[in-house]
Amino acid sequence: MSKFKITIDAMGGDYAPSEIIKGAVEGAKELDIEAIIVGLKEPVEVELAKLDTAGLPVSVVEATQQIADGEAPAIAVMRKPNSSVALATRLVKEGKADATLSAGSTGACMVSAFQYLGTLPGIERPVAGGAFFRLAPDTVILDLGANVGCQPYQTVEFAAIGSVYAKTFHGVDNPTIGLLNVGAEEGKGNDFSKEAYNLLKNSGLNFIGNVEGLDIPAGKANVVVTDGFVGNILTKFCEGIGQSMMGWFLKEMKDKLSPEDLQSTANKIYGILSPGMSMGGGPLLGVDGLFGITHGRSKAQQIVGTIKQMKHAWETGFINNLRAELAKIKKTLPDS
Amino acid sequence: MSKFKITIDAMGGDYAPSEIIKGAVEGAKELDIEAIIVGLKEPVEVELAKLDTAGLPVSVVEATQQIADGEAPAIAVMRKPNSSVALATRLVKEGKADATLSAGSTGACMVSAFQYLGTLPGIERPVAGGAFFRLAPDTVILDLGANVGCQPYQTVEFAAIGSVYAKTFHGVDNPTIGLLNVGAEEGKGNDFSKEAYNLLKNSGLNFIGNVEGLDIPAGKANVVVTDGFVGNILTKFCEGIGQSMMGWFLKEMKDKLSPEDLQSTANKIYGILSPGMSMGGGPLLGVDGLFGITHGRSKAQQIVGTIKQMKHAWETGFINNLRAELAKIKKTLPDS
Repeated sequence: MSKFKITIDAMGGDYAPSEIIKGAVEGAKELDIEAIIVGLKEPVEVELAKLDTAGLPVSVVEATQQIADGEAPAIAVMRKPNSSVALATRLVKEGKADATLSAGSTGACMVSAFQYLGTLPGIERPVAGGAFFRLAPDTVILDLGANVGCQPYQTVEFAAIGSVYAKTFHGVDNPTIGLLNVGAEEGKGNDFSKEAYNLLKNSGLNFIGNVEGLDIPAGKANVVVTDGFVGNILTKFCEGIGQSMMGWFLKEMKDKLSPEDLQSTANKIYGILSPGMSMGGGPLLGVDGLFGITHGRSKAQQIVGTIKQMKHAWETGFINNLRAELAKIKKTLPDS
Repeated sequence: MSKFKITIDAMGGDYAPSEIIKGAVEGAKELDIEAIIVGLKEPVEVELAKLDTAGLPVSVVEATQQIADGEAPAIAVMRKPNSSVALATRLVKEGKADATLSAGSTGACMVSAFQYLGTLPGIERPVAGGAFFRLAPDTVILDLGANVGCQPYQTVEFAAIGSVYAKTFHGVDNPTIGLLNVGAEEGKGNDFSKEAYNLLKNSGLNFIGNVEGLDIPAGKANVVVTDGFVGNILTKFCEGIGQSMMGWFLKEMKDKLSPEDLQSTANKIYGILSPGMSMGGGPLLGVDGLFGITHGRSKAQQIVGTIKQMKHAWETGFINNLRAELAKIKKTLPDS
């Protein structure tokens, strides 16, 4: 097996390019991988010059276009095939790398992945998913907002994808699947949930029935599927609670804790409730190729972590496993 | 103006009948109201004998039927017109009281209110709403689960109801209305949200546009409207987070705080995030009459608080105000 090669978008993220490049170089040092840094010539050279890369499998591919501040990133990516994120993605499509990674805007990543890698058979657009509540780190929820206004059959696709995700990244053997709903019993919910329930029941997946809002933090299912409308509202609500609770805690406990303990606990409360912030990066789902996304506030450590995840996905045949699982459930859906 | 008369379901709630009856008697002592206790003869007499009711405007109406443990409360209420909650509600319908109050199961309350008081014109079934996130105590959200699978026009009704609620109970002059959605801009969301947006925009209410999950804890709108499907999942998710966070906090801080401070702060975290637990009772919405509901775990203090709320609703003409507001928005909706 040849060495895992990953292109890294040096220009995306709040700490780009310095922390991204630092992460790429550290990854090349620690992980037995080949890092291909994609970015604008000058800033990449300046940052690389600060680091010791002698003998490391680190190379640079120059991006000649730039997404300007204030430009809508999703549209910019379409128009600028030589922007760093688009170029990094194309290198995967062209077989020059096994995966790519970006800490840039989710919109830009989605569009770049969609345009250059395409989606897996049957999947209309990339799926946003992952564990978002830190106290239930092994519960994957999808979709988290990329697919708003789903059809019921899409929940079965989310379940298949989530199932492979849980196997690959959480080491769960036969992941349990729950449908997010307003009650535990069959027949609960709106028309969408009733139809989704029936499809999931016949999908051949390890469907355990409906799960409620309470069951997400409790980690009742390994995979929770829902329309992106609900998923988006939930994650943002969770983040808002994190902000409010942090503010409350700082006031409430200021006379009971040392300033250090006060601040660090408040930060932890925020971290637990703020999706993305607390979790490492992972693959964009539903895409026909390995595209790693990580939070905009990622530093070198998170870049290394995400490289590691993507390498693991590559080694375990993540995309092929997804393809196989999607083919299986496809047969259980009507009109196929 | 004659004295406010309220019937009190003595048999509903975790601490029934003792705490409910205690609350009724305290209410009669403190609030210049007339309390009519409705319950089974013997337990009510036993509890009343323990209290000093001399000279207080407290009377008893005997309920001769009982909802048994394990019986589905909603169905039981329909079948048992002389159960305490059904009887307490009928006394309002018959003009023998101005309002009723129960700490019993929400299902039983809904059914009893629906069956004996009916709903306001245009409203199909009672609406579940109120402030559920304690750090944004002045934000009303509806529907919270009674109306799952709404039509878009119902969000306008929720908005009208929420608007009167915010005026009456939060003293807000011209309440702002937000539609819960996945993005701030017009045109965001699924078909439901797009249609609801247009109807709300033309409703004559103080509609400020879409609000996101993040905006609920931030208190961005006085009234947030959403389908009961989303509302139910949100409240239960919030409660689940409360349980998880409490558990986490007890572990995380056990060496940093005294046992008392540790437990009391953990309880506060749970209380903030657990809907119902932290907020006092209030009127069941959309109903054509005053029906106060309060959490099953209510003690005497919460009963007194709920009596106070219901008295305020009565004094300010809550039901008539709702009726007027619903008539106004009705004219802005298609097919009317």
